[in-house]
Amino acid sequence: MQIVESVSRMLELSRDWPPKAKVGFVPTMGYLHAGHLSLVQQANLLCDITVVSIYVNPAQFGPKEDLANYPRDIDRDLQLLGNSQVDYVFFPTTKEIYPENYRTWVEVDGLSGVLCGGSRPGHFKGVATIVLKLVNIVKPHLMFMGEKDFQQVVVLQTMLRDLNVSTQIVPCPIVREKDGLAMSSRNVYLNPQEREQALCLSEAIQIIKSLYKKGITNSDELIRRGSEIIERKDGRLDYLKLVDSNSLEDMTVADSHTRIILAVFIGRTRLIDNQAMV
Amino acid sequence: MQIVESVSRMLELSRDWPPKAKVGFVPTMGYLHAGHLSLVQQANLLCDITVVSIYVNPAQFGPKEDLANYPRDIDRDLQLLGNSQVDYVFFPTTKEIYPENYRTWVEVDGLSGVLCGGSRPGHFKGVATIVLKLVNIVKPHLMFMGEKDFQQVVVLQTMLRDLNVSTQIVPCPIVREKDGLAMSSRNVYLNPQEREQALCLSEAIQIIKSLYKKGITNSDELIRRGSEIIERKDGRLDYLKLVDSNSLEDMTVADSHTRIILAVFIGRTRLIDNQAMV
Repeated sequence: MQIVESVSRMLELSRDWPPKAKVGFVPTMGYLHAGHLSLVQQANLLCDITVVSIYVNPAQFGPKEDLANYPRDIDRDLQLLGNSQVDYVFFPTTKEIYPENYRTWVEVDGLSGVLCGGSRPGHFKGVATIVLKLVNIVKPHLMFMGEKDFQQVVVLQTMLRDLNVSTQIVPCPIVREKDGLAMSSRNVYLNPQEREQALCLSEAIQIIKSLYKKGITNSDELIRRGSEIIERKDGRLDYLKLVDSNSLEDMTVADSHTRIILAVFIGRTRLIDNQAMV
Repeated sequence: MQIVESVSRMLELSRDWPPKAKVGFVPTMGYLHAGHLSLVQQANLLCDITVVSIYVNPAQFGPKEDLANYPRDIDRDLQLLGNSQVDYVFFPTTKEIYPENYRTWVEVDGLSGVLCGGSRPGHFKGVATIVLKLVNIVKPHLMFMGEKDFQQVVVLQTMLRDLNVSTQIVPCPIVREKDGLAMSSRNVYLNPQEREQALCLSEAIQIIKSLYKKGITNSDELIRRGSEIIERKDGRLDYLKLVDSNSLEDMTVADSHTRIILAVFIGRTRLIDNQAMV
Protein backbone atom coordinates (compact mmCIF):
# COMPACT_ATOMS: atom_id res chain seq x y z
CA MET A 1 0.00 0.00 0.00
CA GLN A 2 1.38 3.37 -1.02
CA ILE A 3 0.51 6.53 0.90
CA VAL A 4 0.27 9.53 -1.42
CA GLU A 5 0.28 12.90 0.30
CA SER A 6 0.67 15.32 -2.60
CA VAL A 7 -1.77 16.17 -5.37
CA SER A 8 1.01 16.28 -7.95
CA ARG A 9 2.16 12.75 -7.06
CA MET A 10 -1.40 11.43 -7.28
CA LEU A 11 -1.80 13.14 -10.67
CA GLU A 12 1.40 11.48 -11.87
CA LEU A 13 0.04 8.09 -10.86
CA SER A 14 -3.39 8.64 -12.41
CA ARG A 15 -1.90 9.97 -15.66
CA ASP A 16 -0.21 6.60 -16.03
CA TRP A 17 -2.85 4.15 -14.83
CA PRO A 18 -2.17 0.99 -16.87
CA PRO A 19 -4.39 1.17 -19.99
CA LYS A 20 -6.36 -1.99 -19.24
CA ALA A 21 -6.60 -1.60 -15.48
CA LYS A 22 -9.91 -0.69 -13.90
CA VAL A 23 -9.45 1.84 -11.12
CA GLY A 24 -11.82 1.97 -8.14
CA PHE A 25 -12.01 4.91 -5.76
CA VAL A 26 -13.42 5.20 -2.25
CA PRO A 27 -13.49 8.82 -1.01
CA THR A 28 -13.71 9.06 2.79
CA MET A 29 -13.27 11.53 5.63
CA GLY A 30 -11.35 8.90 7.61
CA TYR A 31 -12.18 7.47 11.06
CA LEU A 32 -13.05 4.34 9.14
CA HIS A 33 -15.64 1.79 10.18
CA ALA A 34 -17.04 -1.40 8.70
CA GLY A 35 -19.18 0.65 6.33
CA HIS A 36 -16.10 2.16 4.68
CA LEU A 37 -14.39 -1.21 4.60
CA SER A 38 -17.37 -2.72 2.77
CA LEU A 39 -16.81 -0.09 0.07
CA VAL A 40 -13.15 -1.05 -0.17
CA GLN A 41 -14.13 -4.71 -0.43
CA GLN A 42 -16.54 -3.92 -3.25
CA ALA A 43 -13.85 -1.87 -5.03
CA ASN A 44 -11.37 -4.72 -4.71
CA LEU A 45 -13.96 -7.08 -6.15
CA LEU A 46 -14.77 -4.99 -9.23
CA CYS A 47 -11.45 -3.22 -9.89
CA ASP A 48 -7.74 -3.90 -10.45
CA ILE A 49 -6.50 -0.91 -8.50
CA THR A 50 -8.17 0.48 -5.37
CA VAL A 51 -7.56 4.04 -4.22
CA VAL A 52 -8.94 5.33 -0.90
CA SER A 53 -8.81 9.02 -0.04
CA ILE A 54 -8.90 10.36 3.50
CA TYR A 55 -9.74 14.04 3.64
CA VAL A 56 -11.93 15.94 6.08
CA ASN A 57 -13.27 18.56 3.67
CA PRO A 58 -13.76 21.90 5.45
CA ALA A 59 -15.93 23.22 2.59
CA GLN A 60 -18.79 20.86 3.44
CA PHE A 61 -19.03 21.88 7.11
CA GLY A 62 -21.12 24.87 8.18
CA PRO A 63 -19.62 27.50 10.52
CA LYS A 64 -21.45 26.01 13.52
CA GLU A 65 -20.81 22.37 12.63
CA ASP A 66 -18.33 19.84 13.97
CA LEU A 67 -15.32 20.36 11.65
CA ALA A 68 -12.86 20.94 14.50
CA ASN A 69 -14.17 18.00 16.53
CA TYR A 70 -14.73 15.60 13.65
CA PRO A 71 -13.09 12.34 14.79
CA ARG A 72 -9.68 11.59 13.29
CA ASP A 73 -7.34 8.62 13.75
CA ILE A 74 -5.06 8.34 10.75
CA ASP A 75 -2.83 5.62 12.25
CA ARG A 76 -5.77 3.32 12.87
CA ASP A 77 -7.19 4.15 9.42
CA LEU A 78 -3.94 3.25 7.68
CA GLN A 79 -3.72 0.00 9.62
CA LEU A 80 -7.28 -0.95 8.61
CA LEU A 81 -6.60 -0.09 4.96
CA GLY A 82 -3.28 -1.92 5.06
CA ASN A 83 -5.19 -5.05 6.01
CA SER A 84 -7.72 -4.52 3.20
CA GLN A 85 -5.66 -4.85 0.01
CA VAL A 86 -5.81 -1.15 -0.77
CA ASP A 87 -3.24 -0.05 -3.35
CA TYR A 88 -3.10 3.70 -2.71
CA VAL A 89 -4.22 5.93 0.14
CA PHE A 90 -4.54 9.56 -0.95
CA PHE A 91 -4.18 11.81 2.07
CA PRO A 92 -3.87 15.42 0.86
CA THR A 93 -3.55 18.64 2.84
CA THR A 94 -6.05 21.49 2.80
CA LYS A 95 -3.24 23.83 1.77
CA GLU A 96 -2.99 21.91 -1.50
CA ILE A 97 -6.69 21.22 -1.99
CA TYR A 98 -7.86 24.80 -1.37
CA PRO A 99 -4.81 26.99 -2.02
CA GLU A 100 -4.90 30.73 -1.49
CA ASN A 101 -7.14 32.40 -4.06
CA TYR A 102 -9.24 29.25 -4.49
CA ARG A 103 -12.43 30.42 -6.24
CA THR A 104 -14.31 27.62 -8.02
CA TRP A 105 -17.47 25.89 -6.79
CA VAL A 106 -19.86 23.35 -8.24
CA GLU A 107 -23.58 23.59 -7.52
CA VAL A 108 -26.29 21.04 -8.27
CA ASP A 109 -29.53 23.03 -8.39
CA GLY A 110 -32.69 21.68 -6.82
CA LEU A 111 -31.23 18.54 -5.26
CA SER A 112 -28.81 20.43 -2.98
CA GLY A 113 -31.26 22.66 -1.12
CA VAL A 114 -33.65 19.99 0.20
CA LEU A 115 -33.36 17.45 3.06
CA CYS A 116 -29.82 17.67 4.51
CA GLY A 117 -29.13 20.61 2.18
CA GLY A 118 -31.98 22.53 3.82
CA SER A 119 -30.51 22.01 7.29
CA ARG A 120 -26.90 22.39 6.14
CA PRO A 121 -26.71 25.31 3.65
CA GLY A 122 -23.69 25.02 1.38
CA HIS A 123 -23.01 21.42 2.43
CA PHE A 124 -23.60 19.86 -0.99
CA LYS A 125 -21.75 22.65 -2.77
CA GLY A 126 -18.74 21.63 -0.68
CA VAL A 127 -19.36 17.94 -1.33
CA ALA A 128 -19.84 18.34 -5.10
CA THR A 129 -16.72 20.48 -5.41
CA ILE A 130 -14.38 18.22 -3.42
CA VAL A 131 -15.61 15.06 -5.14
CA LEU A 132 -15.15 16.59 -8.60
CA LYS A 133 -11.63 17.64 -7.59
CA LEU A 134 -10.81 14.18 -6.21
CA VAL A 135 -12.21 12.47 -9.30
CA ASN A 136 -10.09 14.72 -11.53
CA ILE A 137 -7.02 13.90 -9.46
CA VAL A 138 -7.56 10.14 -9.09
CA LYS A 139 -9.30 9.51 -12.47
CA PRO A 140 -11.16 6.36 -11.38
CA HIS A 141 -13.51 4.32 -13.54
CA LEU A 142 -15.74 3.51 -10.59
CA MET A 143 -16.38 5.38 -7.37
CA PHE A 144 -17.85 3.51 -4.40
CA MET A 145 -20.17 5.39 -2.05
CA GLY A 146 -22.36 4.26 0.81
CA GLU A 147 -26.10 4.71 0.58
CA LYS A 148 -26.15 6.01 4.13
CA ASP A 149 -25.54 9.37 2.49
CA PHE A 150 -28.34 8.74 0.02
CA GLN A 151 -28.82 12.37 -0.98
CA GLN A 152 -25.08 12.69 -1.51
CA VAL A 153 -25.16 9.77 -3.94
CA VAL A 154 -28.04 11.34 -5.90
CA VAL A 155 -26.39 14.79 -5.98
CA LEU A 156 -23.05 13.36 -7.12
CA GLN A 157 -24.57 11.05 -9.75
CA THR A 158 -26.34 14.10 -11.17
CA MET A 159 -23.17 16.19 -11.06
CA LEU A 160 -21.05 13.57 -12.82
CA ARG A 161 -23.71 12.97 -15.48
CA ASP A 162 -24.34 16.69 -16.09
CA LEU A 163 -20.63 17.51 -16.37
CA ASN A 164 -19.95 14.50 -18.64
CA VAL A 165 -17.46 12.96 -16.23
CA SER A 166 -16.73 9.36 -17.20
CA THR A 167 -16.54 8.05 -13.61
CA GLN A 168 -19.53 5.93 -12.55
CA ILE A 169 -20.80 5.76 -8.98
CA VAL A 170 -21.45 2.34 -7.46
CA PRO A 171 -23.88 2.88 -4.57
CA CYS A 172 -23.33 0.33 -1.79
CA PRO A 173 -25.77 -0.77 0.92
CA ILE A 174 -25.70 0.70 4.43
CA VAL A 175 -23.76 -1.35 6.95
CA ARG A 176 -25.50 -1.49 10.34
CA GLU A 177 -24.62 -2.43 13.88
CA LYS A 178 -26.32 -5.62 15.11
CA ASP A 179 -29.12 -3.63 16.68
CA GLY A 180 -29.84 -1.70 13.47
CA LEU A 181 -27.97 1.59 13.99
CA ALA A 182 -26.41 2.70 10.70
CA MET A 183 -22.63 2.87 11.01
CA SER A 184 -21.24 6.40 11.09
CA SER A 185 -18.03 8.03 12.21
CA ARG A 186 -20.24 10.36 14.26
CA ASN A 187 -21.59 7.48 16.39
CA VAL A 188 -18.48 7.94 18.52
CA TYR A 189 -20.05 11.17 19.84
CA LEU A 190 -22.90 9.21 21.51
CA ASN A 191 -22.83 8.45 25.24
CA PRO A 192 -24.38 5.12 26.32
CA GLN A 193 -27.84 6.60 26.85
CA GLU A 194 -27.74 8.38 23.49
CA ARG A 195 -26.50 5.20 21.82
CA GLU A 196 -29.71 3.55 23.00
CA GLN A 197 -31.86 6.51 21.89
CA ALA A 198 -30.18 6.47 18.46
CA LEU A 199 -32.02 3.28 17.59
CA CYS A 200 -35.09 5.41 16.94
CA LEU A 201 -33.88 6.20 13.41
CA SER A 202 -33.85 2.63 12.16
CA GLU A 203 -36.96 1.83 14.21
CA ALA A 204 -38.88 4.68 12.59
CA ILE A 205 -37.91 3.33 9.18
CA GLN A 206 -39.01 -0.18 10.16
CA ILE A 207 -42.41 0.91 11.39
CA ILE A 208 -43.04 2.88 8.19
CA LYS A 209 -42.06 -0.10 6.05
CA SER A 210 -44.31 -2.43 8.00
CA LEU A 211 -47.29 -0.04 7.82
CA TYR A 212 -46.71 0.32 4.06
CA LYS A 213 -46.74 -3.46 3.76
CA LYS A 214 -50.08 -3.44 5.52
CA GLY A 215 -51.43 -1.12 2.84
CA ILE A 216 -51.00 2.38 4.29
CA THR A 217 -49.61 4.62 1.55
CA ASN A 218 -50.60 8.10 2.73
CA SER A 219 -47.31 9.90 3.40
CA ASP A 220 -48.64 12.18 6.15
CA GLU A 221 -49.91 9.17 8.04
CA LEU A 222 -46.68 7.20 7.58
CA ILE A 223 -44.53 10.16 8.59
CA ARG A 224 -46.69 10.80 11.65
CA ARG A 225 -46.27 7.20 12.80
CA GLY A 226 -42.51 7.30 12.22
CA SER A 227 -42.16 10.62 14.03
CA GLU A 228 -43.87 9.17 17.09
CA ILE A 229 -41.00 6.69 17.45
CA ILE A 230 -38.45 9.51 17.35
CA GLU A 231 -40.37 11.57 19.93
CA ARG A 232 -40.84 8.59 22.21
CA LYS A 233 -37.02 8.26 22.42
CA ASP A 234 -36.52 12.02 22.89
CA GLY A 235 -34.87 12.42 19.50
CA ARG A 236 -35.17 15.90 17.99
CA LEU A 237 -36.41 15.45 14.43
CA ASP A 238 -34.59 17.51 11.79
CA TYR A 239 -36.63 15.92 9.01
CA LEU A 240 -38.41 12.68 8.18
CA LYS A 241 -39.61 12.45 4.59
CA LEU A 242 -40.86 10.08 1.97
CA VAL A 243 -39.26 11.16 -1.30
CA ASP A 244 -38.89 10.01 -4.87
CA SER A 245 -35.59 8.10 -5.12
CA ASN A 246 -34.43 10.05 -8.19
CA SER A 247 -35.79 13.58 -7.82
CA LEU A 248 -35.80 13.61 -3.98
CA GLU A 249 -39.18 15.34 -4.22
CA ASP A 250 -41.78 14.76 -1.50
CA MET A 251 -44.34 12.11 -2.35
CA THR A 252 -47.88 12.49 -1.02
CA VAL A 253 -48.57 8.83 -1.67
CA ALA A 254 -45.81 6.29 -1.12
CA ASP A 255 -45.00 3.71 -3.80
CA SER A 256 -42.23 1.28 -4.72
CA HIS A 257 -39.87 4.14 -5.77
CA THR A 258 -40.19 5.87 -2.42
CA ARG A 259 -37.21 6.38 -0.16
CA ILE A 260 -37.72 6.87 3.57
CA ILE A 261 -35.12 9.38 4.68
CA LEU A 262 -34.52 11.16 7.97
CA ALA A 263 -32.15 13.21 10.12
CA VAL A 264 -32.42 13.33 13.90
CA PHE A 265 -30.49 15.08 16.64
CA ILE A 266 -29.63 12.74 19.49
CA GLY A 267 -28.34 15.14 22.12
CA ARG A 268 -25.97 17.34 20.11
CA THR A 269 -25.22 14.67 17.52
CA ARG A 270 -27.00 14.78 14.19
CA LEU A 271 -27.56 11.32 12.70
CA ILE A 272 -29.03 10.32 9.35
CA ASP A 273 -30.53 7.14 7.94
CA ASN A 274 -32.64 6.02 4.99
CA GLN A 275 -34.04 2.97 3.29
CA ALA A 276 -35.98 2.03 0.17
CA MET A 277 -39.69 1.48 0.92
CA VAL A 278 -39.51 -1.96 -0.75
CA MET B 1 -11.94 15.57 -41.13
CA GLN B 2 -14.61 13.76 -39.14
CA ILE B 3 -17.78 15.52 -38.03
CA VAL B 4 -18.95 14.26 -34.65
CA GLU B 5 -22.49 15.17 -33.71
CA SER B 6 -23.13 13.06 -30.62
CA VAL B 7 -21.59 13.33 -27.16
CA SER B 8 -21.37 9.55 -26.84
CA ARG B 9 -19.36 9.26 -30.09
CA MET B 10 -16.99 12.02 -29.00
CA LEU B 11 -16.55 10.26 -25.63
CA GLU B 12 -15.72 7.02 -27.45
CA LEU B 13 -13.05 8.82 -29.44
CA SER B 14 -11.55 10.61 -26.45
CA ARG B 15 -11.52 7.44 -24.35
CA ASP B 16 -9.22 5.96 -26.95
CA TRP B 17 -6.93 8.84 -27.88
CA PRO B 18 -3.63 7.17 -28.83
CA PRO B 19 -1.47 7.06 -25.67
CA LYS B 20 1.36 9.17 -27.09
CA ALA B 21 -0.76 11.62 -29.10
CA LYS B 22 -1.12 15.21 -27.91
CA VAL B 23 -4.68 16.42 -28.36
CA GLY B 24 -5.44 20.10 -28.99
CA PHE B 25 -8.90 21.59 -28.63
CA VAL B 26 -10.39 24.82 -29.97
CA PRO B 27 -13.87 25.52 -28.55
CA THR B 28 -15.85 27.98 -30.70
CA MET B 29 -19.38 29.24 -31.21
CA GLY B 30 -18.92 28.98 -34.98
CA TYR B 31 -19.22 31.72 -37.61
CA LEU B 32 -15.48 31.38 -37.86
CA HIS B 33 -13.06 34.13 -38.78
CA ALA B 34 -9.29 34.46 -39.07
CA GLY B 35 -9.03 34.69 -35.27
CA HIS B 36 -10.48 31.21 -34.85
CA LEU B 37 -8.32 29.88 -37.66
CA SER B 38 -5.19 31.21 -35.95
CA LEU B 39 -6.15 29.07 -32.94
CA VAL B 40 -6.51 26.03 -35.19
CA GLN B 41 -3.13 26.75 -36.73
CA GLN B 42 -1.54 26.98 -33.30
CA ALA B 43 -3.21 23.70 -32.27
CA ASN B 44 -1.95 21.98 -35.42
CA LEU B 45 1.53 23.26 -34.65
CA LEU B 46 1.65 22.01 -31.05
CA CYS B 47 -0.55 18.90 -31.20
CA ASP B 48 -0.99 15.62 -33.08
CA ILE B 49 -4.77 15.71 -33.11
CA THR B 50 -6.87 18.88 -33.43
CA VAL B 51 -10.50 18.98 -32.32
CA VAL B 52 -12.70 22.04 -32.95
CA SER B 53 -16.11 22.35 -31.35
CA ILE B 54 -18.90 24.50 -32.73
CA TYR B 55 -21.62 25.16 -30.20
CA VAL B 56 -23.60 28.32 -29.50
CA ASN B 57 -24.03 27.88 -25.76
CA PRO B 58 -27.41 29.23 -24.62
CA ALA B 59 -26.30 29.24 -20.98
CA GLN B 60 -23.87 32.10 -21.51
CA PHE B 61 -26.42 34.46 -23.08
CA GLY B 62 -28.63 36.68 -20.93
CA PRO B 63 -32.39 36.79 -21.55
CA LYS B 64 -32.07 40.12 -23.44
CA GLU B 65 -28.95 39.16 -25.38
CA ASP B 66 -28.43 38.04 -28.97
CA LEU B 67 -28.73 34.24 -28.68
CA ALA B 68 -31.46 33.96 -31.34
CA ASN B 69 -29.66 36.30 -33.74
CA TYR B 70 -26.13 35.09 -33.09
CA PRO B 71 -24.65 34.56 -36.59
CA ARG B 72 -24.46 30.96 -37.78
CA ASP B 73 -23.12 29.43 -41.00
CA ILE B 74 -22.18 25.83 -40.40
CA ASP B 75 -21.53 25.01 -44.06
CA ARG B 76 -19.00 27.79 -44.41
CA ASP B 77 -17.46 26.85 -41.02
CA LEU B 78 -17.00 23.24 -42.08
CA GLN B 79 -15.44 24.31 -45.35
CA LEU B 80 -12.96 26.57 -43.55
CA LEU B 81 -12.08 23.83 -41.06
CA GLY B 82 -11.80 21.27 -43.86
CA ASN B 83 -9.10 23.46 -45.39
CA SER B 84 -7.28 23.79 -42.08
CA GLN B 85 -6.12 20.24 -41.26
CA VAL B 86 -8.64 19.79 -38.48
CA ASP B 87 -9.14 16.17 -37.44
CA TYR B 88 -12.49 16.33 -35.67
CA VAL B 89 -15.29 18.87 -35.57
CA PHE B 90 -17.54 18.37 -32.56
CA PHE B 91 -20.96 19.82 -33.29
CA PRO B 92 -23.35 18.75 -30.50
CA THR B 93 -27.02 19.59 -29.97
CA THR B 94 -28.42 21.49 -27.01
CA LYS B 95 -30.73 18.57 -26.34
CA GLU B 96 -27.69 16.45 -25.55
CA ILE B 97 -25.61 19.16 -23.84
CA TYR B 98 -28.37 20.36 -21.50
CA PRO B 99 -30.85 17.46 -21.29
CA GLU B 100 -34.07 17.76 -19.35
CA ASN B 101 -33.35 17.96 -15.62
CA TYR B 102 -29.93 19.47 -16.21
CA ARG B 103 -28.90 20.93 -12.83
CA THR B 104 -25.15 21.44 -12.45
CA TRP B 105 -23.28 24.77 -12.70
CA VAL B 106 -19.71 25.87 -12.13
CA GLU B 107 -18.99 29.28 -10.62
CA VAL B 108 -15.66 31.06 -10.33
CA ASP B 109 -16.09 33.53 -7.47
CA GLY B 110 -14.72 37.05 -7.72
CA LEU B 111 -13.47 36.91 -11.31
CA SER B 112 -16.93 36.27 -12.81
CA GLY B 113 -18.79 39.29 -11.43
CA VAL B 114 -16.51 42.06 -12.67
CA LEU B 115 -15.99 43.61 -16.14
CA CYS B 116 -18.10 41.64 -18.68
CA GLY B 117 -19.52 39.62 -15.78
CA GLY B 118 -20.89 42.83 -14.25
CA SER B 119 -22.70 43.72 -17.47
CA ARG B 120 -23.67 40.15 -18.29
CA PRO B 121 -24.83 38.43 -15.06
CA GLY B 122 -24.50 34.65 -15.31
CA HIS B 123 -22.38 34.85 -18.46
CA PHE B 124 -19.23 33.31 -16.96
CA LYS B 125 -21.22 30.68 -15.06
CA GLY B 126 -22.47 29.56 -18.48
CA VAL B 127 -18.98 29.77 -19.97
CA ALA B 128 -17.27 27.88 -17.14
CA THR B 129 -19.90 25.15 -17.20
CA ILE B 130 -19.87 24.53 -20.96
CA VAL B 131 -16.09 24.57 -21.15
CA LEU B 132 -15.75 22.08 -18.29
CA LYS B 133 -18.29 19.84 -20.03
CA LEU B 134 -16.49 20.11 -23.39
CA VAL B 135 -13.12 19.43 -21.77
CA ASN B 136 -14.54 16.34 -20.06
CA ILE B 137 -15.97 15.14 -23.37
CA VAL B 138 -12.94 15.90 -25.58
CA LYS B 139 -10.17 15.27 -22.99
CA PRO B 140 -7.57 17.52 -24.64
CA HIS B 141 -4.06 18.16 -23.37
CA LEU B 142 -4.10 21.74 -24.61
CA MET B 143 -6.99 24.13 -25.19
CA PHE B 144 -6.45 27.14 -27.46
CA MET B 145 -8.31 30.34 -26.66
CA GLY B 146 -8.10 33.84 -28.07
CA GLU B 147 -7.06 36.70 -25.82
CA LYS B 148 -9.84 38.83 -27.25
CA ASP B 149 -11.93 37.25 -24.48
CA PHE B 150 -9.24 38.02 -21.93
CA GLN B 151 -11.48 37.70 -18.88
CA GLN B 152 -12.75 34.39 -20.20
CA VAL B 153 -9.18 33.08 -20.38
CA VAL B 154 -8.48 34.17 -16.79
CA VAL B 155 -11.76 32.70 -15.49
CA LEU B 156 -11.19 29.38 -17.26
CA GLN B 157 -7.54 29.09 -16.25
CA THR B 158 -8.66 29.57 -12.65
CA MET B 159 -11.47 27.04 -13.04
CA LEU B 160 -9.23 24.35 -14.54
CA ARG B 161 -6.52 24.91 -11.91
CA ASP B 162 -8.98 24.93 -9.00
CA LEU B 163 -10.77 21.77 -10.15
CA ASN B 164 -7.47 19.95 -10.87
CA VAL B 165 -8.28 19.45 -14.54
CA SER B 166 -5.16 18.40 -16.43
CA THR B 167 -5.97 20.43 -19.58
CA GLN B 168 -3.77 23.52 -20.05
CA ILE B 169 -4.98 26.69 -21.77
CA VAL B 170 -2.77 28.21 -24.46
CA PRO B 171 -3.80 31.88 -24.77
CA CYS B 172 -3.31 33.18 -28.33
CA PRO B 173 -2.96 36.79 -29.50
CA ILE B 174 -5.89 38.78 -30.84
CA VAL B 175 -6.18 38.80 -34.63
CA ARG B 176 -7.16 42.23 -35.99
CA GLU B 177 -8.46 43.67 -39.23
CA LYS B 178 -5.92 45.83 -41.05
CA ASP B 179 -7.38 48.98 -39.49
CA GLY B 180 -7.06 47.57 -35.96
CA LEU B 181 -10.57 46.28 -35.21
CA ALA B 182 -10.37 43.04 -33.25
CA MET B 183 -11.95 40.19 -35.20
CA SER B 184 -15.27 39.02 -33.82
CA SER B 185 -18.24 37.07 -35.12
CA ARG B 186 -20.35 39.99 -33.93
CA ASN B 187 -18.64 42.44 -36.32
CA VAL B 188 -21.13 41.19 -38.94
CA TYR B 189 -23.83 43.16 -37.04
CA LEU B 190 -22.14 46.49 -37.87
CA ASN B 191 -23.40 48.69 -40.71
CA PRO B 192 -20.74 50.67 -42.65
CA GLN B 193 -20.99 53.71 -40.38
CA GLU B 194 -20.80 51.57 -37.23
CA ARG B 195 -17.86 49.66 -38.70
CA GLU B 196 -16.01 53.00 -38.84
CA GLN B 197 -17.11 53.96 -35.32
CA ALA B 198 -15.94 50.57 -34.00
CA LEU B 199 -12.34 51.62 -34.47
CA CYS B 200 -12.67 53.63 -31.28
CA LEU B 201 -11.97 50.51 -29.18
CA SER B 202 -8.50 49.85 -30.54
CA GLU B 203 -7.83 53.58 -30.80
CA ALA B 204 -8.63 54.09 -27.12
CA ILE B 205 -6.20 51.31 -26.27
CA GLN B 206 -3.50 52.85 -28.46
CA ILE B 207 -3.82 56.30 -26.91
CA ILE B 208 -3.60 54.84 -23.41
CA LYS B 209 -0.49 52.87 -24.33
CA SER B 210 1.18 55.90 -25.86
CA LEU B 211 0.37 58.10 -22.85
CA TYR B 212 1.76 55.38 -20.54
CA LYS B 213 4.94 55.32 -22.62
CA LYS B 214 5.20 59.08 -22.07
CA GLY B 215 5.13 58.49 -18.33
CA ILE B 216 1.46 58.90 -17.36
CA THR B 217 0.57 56.08 -14.96
CA ASN B 218 -2.45 57.48 -13.10
CA SER B 219 -5.35 55.19 -14.06
CA ASP B 220 -8.08 57.83 -13.77
CA GLU B 221 -6.18 60.08 -16.14
CA LEU B 222 -5.49 57.26 -18.63
CA ILE B 223 -9.10 56.06 -18.54
CA ARG B 224 -10.38 59.61 -19.04
CA ARG B 225 -8.23 60.07 -22.12
CA GLY B 226 -9.29 56.68 -23.55
CA SER B 227 -12.97 57.39 -22.86
CA GLU B 228 -12.74 60.64 -24.83
CA ILE B 229 -11.91 58.63 -27.95
CA ILE B 230 -14.99 56.45 -27.43
CA GLU B 231 -17.26 59.45 -26.88
CA ARG B 232 -15.86 61.29 -29.89
CA LYS B 233 -17.01 58.38 -32.09
CA ASP B 234 -20.40 58.14 -30.37
CA GLY B 235 -19.59 54.78 -28.79
CA ARG B 236 -21.53 54.03 -25.59
CA LEU B 237 -18.99 52.90 -23.02
CA ASP B 238 -19.93 49.80 -21.02
CA TYR B 239 -16.59 49.83 -19.19
CA LEU B 240 -12.99 50.85 -19.76
CA LYS B 241 -10.61 49.66 -17.04
CA LEU B 242 -7.00 49.16 -16.20
CA VAL B 243 -6.78 45.89 -14.30
CA ASP B 244 -4.22 43.50 -12.92
CA SER B 245 -3.70 40.75 -15.53
CA ASN B 246 -4.12 37.94 -12.99
CA SER B 247 -6.65 39.17 -10.44
CA LEU B 248 -8.59 41.46 -12.83
CA GLU B 249 -8.68 43.98 -9.98
CA ASP B 250 -8.69 47.70 -10.78
CA MET B 251 -5.28 49.33 -10.57
CA THR B 252 -5.04 52.93 -9.43
CA VAL B 253 -1.54 53.21 -10.90
CA ALA B 254 -0.73 51.41 -14.14
CA ASP B 255 2.37 49.22 -14.41
CA SER B 256 3.82 46.52 -16.63
CA HIS B 257 1.27 43.92 -15.39
CA THR B 258 -1.68 46.13 -16.31
CA ARG B 259 -4.24 45.07 -18.90
CA ILE B 260 -6.30 47.71 -20.70
CA ILE B 261 -9.75 46.21 -21.16
CA LEU B 262 -13.00 47.65 -22.46
CA ALA B 263 -16.50 46.97 -23.74
CA VAL B 264 -18.39 49.44 -25.92
CA PHE B 265 -21.81 49.49 -27.54
CA ILE B 266 -21.64 50.59 -31.17
CA GLY B 267 -25.30 51.04 -32.02
CA ARG B 268 -26.86 47.88 -30.57
CA THR B 269 -23.70 45.80 -30.94
CA ARG B 270 -21.55 45.22 -27.89
CA LEU B 271 -17.85 44.89 -28.76
CA ILE B 272 -14.88 44.11 -26.52
CA ASP B 273 -11.15 44.55 -26.81
CA ASN B 274 -8.06 44.52 -24.59
CA GLN B 275 -4.31 44.69 -24.65
CA ALA B 276 -1.35 44.43 -22.33
CA MET B 277 -0.01 47.84 -21.30
CA VAL B 278 3.48 46.80 -22.42
